[in-house]
Amino acid sequence: MYKINLNCDLGEGAKYDDVIIPMINSANIACGFHAGDSQTMIKTVEFCVENQVCIGAHPGYPDRENFGRTNMDVTPKQVYGFTLYQLGAIDAVAKAKNAKVIYVKPHGAMYNMAAKSKELSDAIVSAVKDFDKELILLGLSGSEMINSARENGVKYACEVFADRAYEADGSLRARSLEGSMITDEQQAIERVIRMVKEGKVKAYTGEDIEIEAHSVCVHGDGEKALEFVKALNRAFEDNSIKTVSLSEVID
Amino acid sequence: MYKINLNCDLGEGAKYDDVIIPMINSANIACGFHAGDSQTMIKTVEFCVENQVCIGAHPGYPDRENFGRTNMDVTPKQVYGFTLYQLGAIDAVAKAKNAKVIYVKPHGAMYNMAAKSKELSDAIVSAVKDFDKELILLGLSGSEMINSARENGVKYACEVFADRAYEADGSLRARSLEGSMITDEQQAIERVIRMVKEGKVKAYTGEDIEIEAHSVCVHGDGEKALEFVKALNRAFEDNSIKTVSLSEVID
Amino acid sequence: MYKINLNCDLGEGAKYDDVIIPMINSANIACGFHAGDSQTMIKTVEFCVENQVCIGAHPGYPDRENFGRTNMDVTPKQVYGFTLYQLGAIDAVAKAKNAKVIYVKPHGAMYNMAAKSKELSDAIVSAVKDFDKELILLGLSGSEMINSARENGVKYACEVFADRAYEADGSLRARSLEGSMITDEQQAIERVIRMVKEGKVKAYTGEDIEIEAHSVCVHGDGEKALEFVKALNRAFEDNSIKTVSLSEVID
Amino acid sequence: MYKINLNCDLGEGAKYDDVIIPMINSANIACGFHAGDSQTMIKTVEFCVENQVCIGAHPGYPDRENFGRTNMDVTPKQVYGFTLYQLGAIDAVAKAKNAKVIYVKPHGAMYNMAAKSKELSDAIVSAVKDFDKELILLGLSGSEMINSARENGVKYACEVFADRAYEADGSLRARSLEGSMITDEQQAIERVIRMVKEGKVKAYTGEDIEIEAHSVCVHGDGEKALEFVKALNRAFEDNSIKTVSLSEVID
Repeated sequence: MYKINLNCDLGEGAKYDDVIIPMINSANIACGFHAGDSQTMIKTVEFCVENQVCIGAHPGYPDRENFGRTNMDVTPKQVYGFTLYQLGAIDAVAKAKNAKVIYVKPHGAMYNMAAKSKELSDAIVSAVKDFDKELILLGLSGSEMINSARENGVKYACEVFADRAYEADGSLRARSLEGSMITDEQQAIERVIRMVKEGKVKAYTGEDIEIEAHSVCVHGDGEKALEFVKALNRAFEDNSIKTVSLSEVID
Repeated sequence: MYKINLNCDLGEGAKYDDVIIPMINSANIACGFHAGDSQTMIKTVEFCVENQVCIGAHPGYPDRENFGRTNMDVTPKQVYGFTLYQLGAIDAVAKAKNAKVIYVKPHGAMYNMAAKSKELSDAIVSAVKDFDKELILLGLSGSEMINSARENGVKYACEVFADRAYEADGSLRARSLEGSMITDEQQAIERVIRMVKEGKVKAYTGEDIEIEAHSVCVHGDGEKALEFVKALNRAFEDNSIKTVSLSEVID
Repeated sequence: MYKINLNCDLGEGAKYDDVIIPMINSANIACGFHAGDSQTMIKTVEFCVENQVCIGAHPGYPDRENFGRTNMDVTPKQVYGFTLYQLGAIDAVAKAKNAKVIYVKPHGAMYNMAAKSKELSDAIVSAVKDFDKELILLGLSGSEMINSARENGVKYACEVFADRAYEADGSLRARSLEGSMITDEQQAIERVIRMVKEGKVKAYTGEDIEIEAHSVCVHGDGEKALEFVKALNRAFEDNSIKTVSLSEVID
Repeated sequence: MYKINLNCDLGEGAKYDDVIIPMINSANIACGFHAGDSQTMIKTVEFCVENQVCIGAHPGYPDRENFGRTNMDVTPKQVYGFTLYQLGAIDAVAKAKNAKVIYVKPHGAMYNMAAKSKELSDAIVSAVKDFDKELILLGLSGSEMINSARENGVKYACEVFADRAYEADGSLRARSLEGSMITDEQQAIERVIRMVKEGKVKAYTGEDIEIEAHSVCVHGDGEKALEFVKALNRAFEDNSIKTVSLSEVID
């Protein structure tokens, strides 16, 4: 039987957190820099505990102004500090609810910049490792983040996207370019199924590329997004794909 | 032999942190809400580790605008969240340097409001206890914070001030009132010595009051403040008072 | 013919700003302290200009954490500064779109605290007057804000609430108390109509009180709120009440 | 007689603002994004008014964490908004003290990025022009900021640095490179004198380059910096160079 994990960004101020949580396995919880605050973090952790959904840290750049999406020319030392600080904050909240953070997935510009930078990835991986050697890094499949985790002996899980096109080199096609989004839901679902079962996806330029898929990123920020997650879950069932925790999928 | 602890607020942007650290026993490190950020926290923790000075969390209100000194009408739930979040953040930084947070001293308006409020004190004590049952709460001697820690089985240490006048009920004389500050250095030192040796201090209104003194708050934000700490340390030596860690003084 | 003004808080991150703007006369635009940022302010001002809706400054406390709703123990000097700074910022945005700020309505805790404090009201009124003598202050009907504007020769408009109960002294019944909200829409509409036509409203304790009504605060943060505004506008039409600008209603 | 202007960054939390203000002609006042807040802005404007020093807006990126020094991948639209918002805020403060903002000098990363980017410079110049057509843009001599102001019919003044080396193309030698700083005070002063009198400076690579010098940036953040400004002022006197307002120097 195939296994896959479903992760979703939470605690960022969207309305449907309580609806999406029971449909996913892993909750990336915003830690107060790009979004979120202590009250939201506590409430989101409580939802996760009630629904037995794994808690992940979702650290971002200190950029509420633009929701952590601004590329910032930060040093690896700064990124190390951002990650460590936010990881500690969310873990304290989890601890207070007798839970713990299981994994770390950087947010927005931090995620995208680290995906292409060995230096930034090493900084994130160091912070993760310095905090807790057992944590899993959830990063873009095939990216520098995954390479860095592997080299430094940190557990990792490879993330794929249902709604994004891939370039021939396995990177995500930039949002600014034509055809970057997979808008047809059925096609999106079929691509995910194939990534899970065959480890392959068709690149924007037409050729098949190899891709490792441990976790699919889904969204919970609207009715349509919620419908898609339901459809995806049904498709997984029809294809004998079991949705499981990150720990189980990378085992 | 008598014992006392010297604590100082650090990582708040003052210039002399590296000079004052070797003269004290306990460093209250700002955690990013009223002052401080991840880089400063890392650097300050490193100084503490090098100088074997105990690390304390110094959480404040989210009020950089006024350095955490604005009284805010916050709920106990919010204060619980502020404390937990910041405690986790500074502990993560300490952990990464193979150290750990030993105690918690709230900052500014959070400290002053909690000193008089059982509800806010209970919120702080809950956060401390939920995070780590072994932590010490450092609060104003004779205040609600100390009462709450005692009632909830949390370790506590009683803080006294060298440069502040006390009212007959043991509270600090409000800064806005005449005679609130002890400006004569020699007098300030003698008062501290007496608090440590006799457990007594003369109130503003003239009578002697009882006061428990585990730790003296000193400042490191100028040449004059540094000179005072040196003089205080000399006076302790002359009076057979040993400066020790918080754990040792409350033992 | 009777006249009334409809105002609504905007640029605070709700989804329906573009839907509500054409239904109102005056837009209180968040200025970046409790909510909003330069991009949102620009976009909201553009909507207002397109729809010929008057632009108002909506300054709040620097408290994004709790959306400007935390009562803060700030000095009149600080409140003066908060108001002046934010007023300048939103007026610059308006100016760039060939518009200008017509009025000022403080937000949340600043509004509520000033309503009861002559000192804070005087601070706000000074800032408004120092910036532009022609500006209108929009404040709670019967409050210290209105008194202060009157005494200082600043134009003012009295705000009433459709969905809130009033105490016998004309103050709003605190949200924490039973019966503070008027939940029956029809009753809410009838109360507003009577405030406009007769200058009276029935207090929570049963007696009729006098109330001056220049502007009604409406909300645009959900389908239900939008329906209410539509119903209110229909009721105004049926009762020969014309919705006009603040300048016209206070004329 | 030769003319030059002396400008200094102020209201950023340094201790000597009141000492440096009487020694300069133009005060670049931080506007709350990278540093500063409404209280500091009011106090700094008051100092300037008392000392008849011209008030300039000193807008920066929303990055208190790193004092506005982080290069951020922001859009021209965002930079336009940052500039407009902060310009309005400081102008409101000036207006309340019967003064007005005379010029705009971007801060840190915004200054450096705009110096090399026509797009960002155009955004800043648009905001300046949309706010007040009479404002002067103070930018790096020979930079895109100056080009953009000239092309768009906005007044400009060219800034030079006493303590920085220049490359052969007129750009500042990057701080990260060897020899970027002119540490010898006498040499720094002689270079400035020559820039003013001859419009020339020796580049790092040895050749003379042409440079337009309307204003020299000085610092007020320490005893040594203050001594340098005194020495510079004496040298100007000895060389018949008069320090004047920006308006006068560009006239």
